[in-house]
Amino acid sequence: MRTLFLSAQGAATLISRAGLARCIRGMVNEIDHDFKRWEQFDKSARLASHSAQGVIEIMPISDGQTYGFKYVNGHPNNHRHELPTVMAFGVLARVETGLPEFVSELTLVTALRTAATSALAAQHMTNPAVRSMALIGNGAQSEFQAVAFHELLGIDTFYLYDTDFSATEKLAIHLYELGLKTILCKSVPEAVREVDVITTATAAKTHASVLTKNMLRPGVHINAIGGDCPGKTELHPDILRDARVFVEYEPQTRIEGEIQQMPKDFPVTELWEVLTGFALGRTAPDQITVFDSVGFALEDFSVMRYMHRLALAQGELESLSLIPELPDPKNLYSWLKHGEVA
Amino acid sequence: MRTLFLSAQGAATLISRAGLARCIRGMVNEIDHDFKRWEQFDKSARLASHSAQGVIEIMPISDGQTYGFKYVNGHPNNHRHELPTVMAFGVLARVETGLPEFVSELTLVTALRTAATSALAAQHMTNPAVRSMALIGNGAQSEFQAVAFHELLGIDTFYLYDTDFSATEKLAIHLYELGLKTILCKSVPEAVREVDVITTATAAKTHASVLTKNMLRPGVHINAIGGDCPGKTELHPDILRDARVFVEYEPQTRIEGEIQQMPKDFPVTELWEVLTGFALGRTAPDQITVFDSVGFALEDFSVMRYMHRLALAQGELESLSLIPELPDPKNLYSWLKHGEVA
Repeated sequence: MRTLFLSAQGAATLISRAGLARCIRGMVNEIDHDFKRWEQFDKSARLASHSAQGVIEIMPISDGQTYGFKYVNGHPNNHRHELPTVMAFGVLARVETGLPEFVSELTLVTALRTAATSALAAQHMTNPAVRSMALIGNGAQSEFQAVAFHELLGIDTFYLYDTDFSATEKLAIHLYELGLKTILCKSVPEAVREVDVITTATAAKTHASVLTKNMLRPGVHINAIGGDCPGKTELHPDILRDARVFVEYEPQTRIEGEIQQMPKDFPVTELWEVLTGFALGRTAPDQITVFDSVGFALEDFSVMRYMHRLALAQGELESLSLIPELPDPKNLYSWLKHGEVA
Repeated sequence: MRTLFLSAQGAATLISRAGLARCIRGMVNEIDHDFKRWEQFDKSARLASHSAQGVIEIMPISDGQTYGFKYVNGHPNNHRHELPTVMAFGVLARVETGLPEFVSELTLVTALRTAATSALAAQHMTNPAVRSMALIGNGAQSEFQAVAFHELLGIDTFYLYDTDFSATEKLAIHLYELGLKTILCKSVPEAVREVDVITTATAAKTHASVLTKNMLRPGVHINAIGGDCPGKTELHPDILRDARVFVEYEPQTRIEGEIQQMPKDFPVTELWEVLTGFALGRTAPDQITVFDSVGFALEDFSVMRYMHRLALAQGELESLSLIPELPDPKNLYSWLKHGEVA
């Protein structure tokens, strides 16, 4: 069969076998490599369909050889339906023929790629020798953030806060099992007071001010991943005004990111510029840095290729009868009427 | 499993069993029904990624309850790779949760839906009692056009022309088997001289003038389905200037259709307006009418829902492990580390 499929179970098996930290590290390398060839990509802001309950998005990208897209939703109340807030799948196709060659689950893979992108960016934005991180929002993404920041930046102390204490409890147990130090906090100010890095990953679809300027200590890096829709932000605009702000792809982030609250000419630096050395990351120890991350198609493209290679090497792919295999490609009708049809 | 899959083989089996003509008629009803509730849809022009070899497109749409999208390519030289020019698949998801519920092959189904849309439109645009049609371009789409126009408009005589004579031969044999009269022609002017309807379905990605004004007899209806990309047209602009021109979704057709050759204010009528009686179809017997069809997401949405119902009723769906089934949807990490993973 021409199209290969990596199922949700298949992806989980691959990641479990290789180890979560090793997979995130592999994804970081792949994402870093692709961001460094930024100019080769045909890029566009994702196509979003909004409803009262959430958003459904299509994120396409191409490097001229391979075309990829991700389907992803964001529905903050999905737990009421016993469904994840974020579900995703994706496809890689050959640009030369348009053949879809690889279909992959991306619910699990998106959790890893978001954490990988956060850690990759933070490597260029934090002060040296960071040790502690606050995790504000302790949902499905939080463990992956902790593993990525421990693996890539050596962070070993995590301050946890969520409006839902059972989520914090769940995260604390997982981090304890990993040998990481956790401090359970009763409020956001308490969680962020002394840390080197703050990750905000809340799900509410509203203009929230999860963080305000008075809570922050100088030199902190904010990894803001929950504000990723028009009308959905986490940071008070005063924080942005005085910070050095980094984005993935400016045209998309102006619509969806924290900077939707700022004037159109508010200065930002794109991540690829920092990774290539074209622009600086942090420029002063006391500076507040913000990675205003909304998730960009390039990251999904990179990790789909990573998972495709891993799955090929380990034989975890199934075949999918997605495209008919015609004896004569100009003769679709004959295949239907007289062909191999049951 | 939450996501159901209709394979290429499954779709072929369903269509063979029900009969091609009956399926096309079913799709015509479904498309007609959905075009008549045009205002309920969240519509956008499709997102195209162009390359030297062809185009890859994503076509999303939502009616507020169901979200659908189609992936489709158009690569005129794919026969060199033993692949169809057009390949497609699609997805239906619930707007309320974002869950992708149905994944379907659409290579075969797109062939039927294009023919169904052509015939549905033509019913409102031809003169009464049409009998003959020219088929210019005898590729994968041509048999489906013949069956649809025979079934819905009573056309029984087909004038065939293609630059590749073997394609014409193939089509002639199939139409003969269906009991339809065929005339094999040596040129476009010969094929179109006396007919009531002309369908152009050529694949060349260029500004071709497959038809010029002097070839046409008064009162003919042109079903122009091959010009569907920027830089890809089939009709000389003089034909359009004097014709009554119908389109599916004006913002998309201005970019992709025959009317890309015309000024931005060139008057067109949208198909939904004609189907609802809001606008007239043909307004004079001698008028030349053109359905400048590029294919619109709504048509794919309609036929995916049709095939989904058919497949559910006949048990042709497979399950697809696309979205992980988490015991606790906030606990993706636990599913990965300790869960049901092999």
